Amino acid sequence: MRFAKGHGTGNDFVILPDPDGALPVTADLVRRLCDRRFGLGGDGVLRVVRAAKHPDAAHLAGEAEWFMDYHNADGSLSEMCGNGVRVFARYLTDTGLVTAATFPIATRAGVVTALAGADEITVDMVRPVLGPRSNAREHRTGRDFAGTSVSVGNPHLVCAADDLDGLDLTAPPGYDHGLFPDGVNVEFVAPAEPVEGRDVHVRMRVYERGSGETWSCGSGACAVAAVALHDAGIPHGFVAVDLPGGRLTVAIAADRCVLSGPAVIVATGELTL
Amino acid sequence: MRFAKGHGTGNDFVILPDPDGALPVTADLVRRLCDRRFGLGGDGVLRVVRAAKHPDAAHLAGEAEWFMDYHNADGSLSEMCGNGVRVFARYLTDTGLVTAATFPIATRAGVVTALAGADEITVDMVRPVLGPRSNAREHRTGRDFAGTSVSVGNPHLVCAADDLDGLDLTAPPGYDHGLFPDGVNVEFVAPAEPVEGRDVHVRMRVYERGSGETWSCGSGACAVAAVALHDAGIPHGFVAVDLPGGRLTVAIAADRCVLSGPAVIVATGELTL
Repeated sequence: MRFAKGHGTGNDFVILPDPDGALPVTADLVRRLCDRRFGLGGDGVLRVVRAAKHPDAAHLAGEAEWFMDYHNADGSLSEMCGNGVRVFARYLTDTGLVTAATFPIATRAGVVTALAGADEITVDMVRPVLGPRSNAREHRTGRDFAGTSVSVGNPHLVCAADDLDGLDLTAPPGYDHGLFPDGVNVEFVAPAEPVEGRDVHVRMRVYERGSGETWSCGSGACAVAAVALHDAGIPHGFVAVDLPGGRLTVAIAADRCVLSGPAVIVATGELTL
Repeated sequence: MRFAKGHGTGNDFVILPDPDGALPVTADLVRRLCDRRFGLGGDGVLRVVRAAKHPDAAHLAGEAEWFMDYHNADGSLSEMCGNGVRVFARYLTDTGLVTAATFPIATRAGVVTALAGADEITVDMVRPVLGPRSNAREHRTGRDFAGTSVSVGNPHLVCAADDLDGLDLTAPPGYDHGLFPDGVNVEFVAPAEPVEGRDVHVRMRVYERGSGETWSCGSGACAVAAVALHDAGIPHGFVAVDLPGGRLTVAIAADRCVLSGPAVIVATGELTL
């Protein structure tokens, strides 16, 4: 079985080229591939399959040639992953499966447009929608952080924090289970020095539901950018978001949200496990 | 640059085939390769180089064709690694670089003999030497565990523990800095159900100095086996040691100690990072 490994700002994936959808990608195989010591290691698996060849994407085959069949490291399926689709797009261009600079990718959340630059890959994301205010509680100290709930397809709670580096995110922050019955991704945000060409620049750390603290979260960066623009009184604009794994840029317009950042393939080869 | 990835009971390594010693393996490259999100991920790098072609092993070229040039994940050099040399041996046999069942491998600690079976690889280890009694202290509870100091080339402290699963090894256990001025690897051991053909069977967890808790530690398993045999009043024998990453077997005789266990290559390929 052929594979590639790549990452976008430290969010890493095992890529399985399978144009005809012939590989038996079971939950067990995904867990074994993503295991960081017994396998290759990754936050998820991206199977590269023609939309026409996969039952979940055949209805999109007229719009996009390739389907990102995304699997979480625990073997479950996900509809969409902002960093995952950027790494998927990088794989398509690196391997020559796609030669256009702008191209569509089928996902379980619909068709996404990718724009491939030399260093950065830009993709469409769901436009964030701000919701009610709420609090997150640091588990160790019991300290409360005031925040804003945001939907980016999935639920987020974006909280202001003075001392990002001092936060203990080794256990899940507490939150209002009435407001977030399915759990929530919690972002902590602090202002950062101005960056040229960006309306706002922030630093963030994120605790992802089900995963713990991660180096990067594409939808989390979009949620943070939407709150940062709102707080700055700017309806639409560009936000530089520094995560532990690197810098993402979020552009929010009246009707859309796009996410840009580096995406690289670090290895290709043959699995023997 | 070609690579392979493999592991022995969850102790995992990036393998770089470099028969002529031509690759510039810098500390920076090792750190990048071993990074689990931005690179391939591993506890260390094993460069596969002919003994005659490496200055650290040229004096051993008459005894062993291949030299295990071992680098820790932090970029520093190590003399020897029990699981590393087993994975190294598996790579040599899987690729056909060695066809004998028993063969010598040059390391910075001298020449080691490997025996390759279908599933298990057996290698020589330093015979453990028991030292004075001492205590380790669990950092969270302050609870003391009585143990025995053991030298296996490197320092170990083997402590009895009733409830292995309940131990908190997220921070280094306390120890006697006078007895262990260079730090110590701390093993916690509990008895386990008898295994056929083994004189003693134990379970263990290990906190490695500089690394934290790991899934497996070859020299730690040897230290634990030596204490277990001593406590059982058996001078020489076979010990089954269950670590979080799998089972190792240690055989201790009057003048030697050998370590056996699974070692597998999970992927081979080409680096693009």
